[in-house]
Amino acid sequence: MPAHNFDILGLGNAIVDVVAAVPEAFLAEHKMVKGTMQLIEADAAEHLYAAMPPGVESSGGSVANTCAVAAGLGARVGFLGKVADDQLGEVFRHDITAASVHFPTPALVGGAPTARSLILVTPDGQRTMNTFLGACVTFSEADLDPALIAAADVVYLEGFLFDPPPAQAAFHAAARLARGGGKRVALSLSDPFCVARHRAAFRALLAHIDILFANEAEIQSLYETDDFATAAAAARRDVALAVLTRSERGSLILRGAEQVAVPAAPAVVIDTTGAGDAYAAGFLAGLAAGRDLAASGWLGSRAAALVIGQYGARPRLGLRDLAAN
Amino acid sequence: MPAHNFDILGLGNAIVDVVAAVPEAFLAEHKMVKGTMQLIEADAAEHLYAAMPPGVESSGGSVANTCAVAAGLGARVGFLGKVADDQLGEVFRHDITAASVHFPTPALVGGAPTARSLILVTPDGQRTMNTFLGACVTFSEADLDPALIAAADVVYLEGFLFDPPPAQAAFHAAARLARGGGKRVALSLSDPFCVARHRAAFRALLAHIDILFANEAEIQSLYETDDFATAAAAARRDVALAVLTRSERGSLILRGAEQVAVPAAPAVVIDTTGAGDAYAAGFLAGLAAGRDLAASGWLGSRAAALVIGQYGARPRLGLRDLAAN
Repeated sequence: MPAHNFDILGLGNAIVDVVAAVPEAFLAEHKMVKGTMQLIEADAAEHLYAAMPPGVESSGGSVANTCAVAAGLGARVGFLGKVADDQLGEVFRHDITAASVHFPTPALVGGAPTARSLILVTPDGQRTMNTFLGACVTFSEADLDPALIAAADVVYLEGFLFDPPPAQAAFHAAARLARGGGKRVALSLSDPFCVARHRAAFRALLAHIDILFANEAEIQSLYETDDFATAAAAARRDVALAVLTRSERGSLILRGAEQVAVPAAPAVVIDTTGAGDAYAAGFLAGLAAGRDLAASGWLGSRAAALVIGQYGARPRLGLRDLAAN
Repeated sequence: MPAHNFDILGLGNAIVDVVAAVPEAFLAEHKMVKGTMQLIEADAAEHLYAAMPPGVESSGGSVANTCAVAAGLGARVGFLGKVADDQLGEVFRHDITAASVHFPTPALVGGAPTARSLILVTPDGQRTMNTFLGACVTFSEADLDPALIAAADVVYLEGFLFDPPPAQAAFHAAARLARGGGKRVALSLSDPFCVARHRAAFRALLAHIDILFANEAEIQSLYETDDFATAAAAARRDVALAVLTRSERGSLILRGAEQVAVPAAPAVVIDTTGAGDAYAAGFLAGLAAGRDLAASGWLGSRAAALVIGQYGARPRLGLRDLAAN
């Protein structure tokens, strides 16, 4: 059992991002849907990488980003996810550790390499992701440390981690352990296509979820509707706390009969990579610090604005100032 | 023999940069001299990396940066340097190739890993480098392709490459080959401590150099004087074309009796990493495009300003615009 408790324990893909700026035409040429994430195999990753402009590498992964930002905002955070014992795995481990996140998962030895996401940023600041999951597909129940889960107030699950099959089992086990210990379980739906791939499984999982994070496209995909209000009403019914983000229209937080609308914070759009992750970080760090829903949502909005205003998903400066206000 | 000629063929260290923002105190704690480069061994690199904040990885190396920027400015460029057959080596190869630089040097197999430079950026925008040379130390005469050298108008040598002993022999061989073919040889002194380590060898090499790039600290170190005018006069005597950079005071270009003073271009200082490399890129690309000394220096000043105004040594945008003006 760790000596101290954690406010947040994240479970997610352990990924290194390769970010490059591309013109709009690049997406069409490579048949990508802007703003989404697609999974690609090793061969396709190699082919796409060869076609990409020079890039910049930094640690990524949706929930891992949330963990790094939440730690920067003062929360006590742990993360579980699978890297390989290679150079990119070392980079991932260094960065999340240096961000003050406890990261005990051992590296995969002798298997697939560390996951990477080839992220293309168009001139409008939108990011389109192509992820080769590599070592992440081996994340399993064996990587869960029950003592660690028992020591966390909120266990935060990444929807993307549903793609590798052994991780689904780990999700259910983590949720069971957390709730058995009286702790809360949060889930991010991650991406509308990820939701479509696993709709039934996500719907079934909701019974074990306390806090649901989703953007408009994701929640509408989950409930197979093109009407946001319909989707929001369904989310309100299915989970104790639903946190729905709407880009520049801010977020809507639903808890039973309560409903809080939070505005977006002003931002100059440079690169939207990690905006949703940063919002979740602000919201969860706010709750951990005892803030109410509106104040937690506003911390989420401001963290998202900080991330949008610079390249990359983990801002190097400015988080402490946000947390102090 | 390649089908086309090259304006510039660079010989340098093939390095991946790991850049992190640190407070001033970090440098003192780790006994570093701000603004310089020190060589470190594998153990020290691991120790320092563990102490560093989260970083961002991108391809670096002084002359490699110059090559990437010069290609972005429209010059036809090749580069020779040694990476290992590992993930960071793949990153280096991808980036320089994607920057339109021909990079034929085979990777080192079964030896040291790809070189990396741990770069600490202080709030004043200064960068302090700690380089683990890894595979670079094996760069040797065997990596020189005489046909490639014969196809280049200017062979550009990186002072830092003097540190690994087999590379010194490669330097002399490359200079001999280039001059034997009627081509010009350029040299960057790279760093005042690098100059101090190899002062006699650099002084001897000058007889085979046509274009010398140095900043104030480097040229004063070469001639062991604390007076810039004295050092400049010595450089004017020793090489046909001396290009001396002076940070915000611009540059001084000396060719025989000719002397051209070029102002610095206005810049907001974000990160000075690669400023000197970009200046050299602009100057050499300018010469290759048939510009005169003043116009070539001014292209160098503007390329340096672009690099200083953003994170990293290889700007992703804006080079084409510079070259067009």
